[in-house]
Amino acid sequence: MRSRSLLVLLLMLPLAASAQPADPVVLAVHGGAGTIRRADMTPEMEAAVRAGLEGALRAGYDALQAGRPALDAVVAAIEVLEDDPHFNAGRGGVFAADYTVRHDASVMDGATGLAGASAGTMHVRHPIRLARAVMEHSPHVLLTGAGAEEFAMLQGLELVPNEWFHVARRREALERVQEQEREARGDAGAAPAPWQMMGTIGAVALDRDGHLAAGTSTGGMTNKKWGRVGDSPIIGAATYAADPTCGVSTTGHGEFFIRLAVAHDVHARVRYLGETCAEAAEAVIHETLTEAGGTGGLIALDREGNVAMPFNTEGMYRGFITRSGAVTIGFYGDE
Amino acid sequence: MRSRSLLVLLLMLPLAASAQPADPVVLAVHGGAGTIRRADMTPEMEAAVRAGLEGALRAGYDALQAGRPALDAVVAAIEVLEDDPHFNAGRGGVFAADYTVRHDASVMDGATGLAGASAGTMHVRHPIRLARAVMEHSPHVLLTGAGAEEFAMLQGLELVPNEWFHVARRREALERVQEQEREARGDAGAAPAPWQMMGTIGAVALDRDGHLAAGTSTGGMTNKKWGRVGDSPIIGAATYAADPTCGVSTTGHGEFFIRLAVAHDVHARVRYLGETCAEAAEAVIHETLTEAGGTGGLIALDREGNVAMPFNTEGMYRGFITRSGAVTIGFYGDE
Repeated sequence: MRSRSLLVLLLMLPLAASAQPADPVVLAVHGGAGTIRRADMTPEMEAAVRAGLEGALRAGYDALQAGRPALDAVVAAIEVLEDDPHFNAGRGGVFAADYTVRHDASVMDGATGLAGASAGTMHVRHPIRLARAVMEHSPHVLLTGAGAEEFAMLQGLELVPNEWFHVARRREALERVQEQEREARGDAGAAPAPWQMMGTIGAVALDRDGHLAAGTSTGGMTNKKWGRVGDSPIIGAATYAADPTCGVSTTGHGEFFIRLAVAHDVHARVRYLGETCAEAAEAVIHETLTEAGGTGGLIALDREGNVAMPFNTEGMYRGFITRSGAVTIGFYGDE
Repeated sequence: MRSRSLLVLLLMLPLAASAQPADPVVLAVHGGAGTIRRADMTPEMEAAVRAGLEGALRAGYDALQAGRPALDAVVAAIEVLEDDPHFNAGRGGVFAADYTVRHDASVMDGATGLAGASAGTMHVRHPIRLARAVMEHSPHVLLTGAGAEEFAMLQGLELVPNEWFHVARRREALERVQEQEREARGDAGAAPAPWQMMGTIGAVALDRDGHLAAGTSTGGMTNKKWGRVGDSPIIGAATYAADPTCGVSTTGHGEFFIRLAVAHDVHARVRYLGETCAEAAEAVIHETLTEAGGTGGLIALDREGNVAMPFNTEGMYRGFITRSGAVTIGFYGDE
């Protein structure tokens, strides 16, 4: 029996083990999937988005190079994107139906399995820092609304007026959506346009000690009502990290990502099917999500430094940096 | 090759397939795990809890007998428990730190994969109805706070003053916890006592057409602060339902259930490991949750009518009813 078990194990190894790449990826980021159609992209916008992604990668990379944990790199990278008005998170968060900007964020540490998240805050400059503080300084995983802001104040996090987050382009987008809604006689139950759902940012990192972390942050959906919360603050939907499997951050039509528990599903396929992180990520996006009719993508990184960035939209803003510091950025499917 | 695949398939069948019981279970409910220690249980309380669980089972069973879908049975059963002050949901919801009662609920339909949830409402009499309305009448999965109540009003759901939910025993529990907190010099980051985290109710049902549904509802945690939300409104953590695998509703220390995506993990083990729903449920509670240091339990039902109700606490209020109408109720581990 023992030799037979060993044989089975040996046969499974080539499938289950991920080879260590020569120059492993240590950090990957995304800036949303499907937010801008290629036809609408200007050279200025493209340069700005590229610079934002690269700045985020460099910030996280610096943390890793300094020997700091994966969690630090994830937060450092996401903070850069939260401060950049070109991305739907922090400063550039989209407007809710009531002309406020409300943020959701989550983070998970693959070394400990601990996680933190916040939903619906209006004054926390860096929601990803709040998510981390919930994980590290409260007994909870998810705090919401005004209560989450009270906790942010207790933690000494930077607060800003909601107006600080207001970006003209986002306000115009809301005005456009509400105009269309009025023309359609305001059917409150109508499904939002795909582009409304797509803005999110996220990062996954691998530190020198072989630990993984993942985080996601968003302003949610343009014209969101009724306190709608998408997948971004939901551990298992948008964010998951476990050292033995992978770190995952997603972006896309959040309702599908919640119902399919997309981030946890990648983890589960690695754990139970013995797939590599990349195989699992591809299967979840191109089979499970696509078959369910959902759109979006994700970034996934394993402890060997193998990265996967599948998406089923026209594009996904994404990039990664390797241990040697080489940066790769991509927007569309043919890059 | 083909004959070998067939052989492998045949060898796996006894493991993977759930036999149909002679009198299949069609509905299971739980009323929380670990809320009351056996030593503290009075005969009056025991009789009241038993009557509540049986009333919920009868209400859901009537819906199923009338040929209505599993989702109707889940909502009917949970409504009974939401109206019963002996359970931490609806009427008997525990008090938050600010002397309000705030509810979370979620529901999922195994036939369609659709889901709905609400978090932090204060005036919706039956939060499970709101969760269902979110699923059926909005393009979203999760609505929160005052926005969720606006949606509840638009849907014509019954609203009551928050005081309607106030139960003397729950208020005394909050006073006791806050007194202890003051004695401990109010360390805001201290972990709550286990019993504070444990109250939840839930139901899973199997209808005549072989469809599954699951739902969960709670008042959350006594003395909760900062807009803390537990696992109950999180699809994948507390609630999951998929016809090919199982329907699941959990109860316990919610933070662990979020981090481990407990309900989705049961589904994933059935889908990817080929375990039966009962095997997966037992493994997730007695291995994954227990090894992580978490406490609680869950109810799980598959489309053959096999039920599992594992927990790692002293007790879990639980019960099920079979197609013939036979009711079984249990409180502790030795029943």
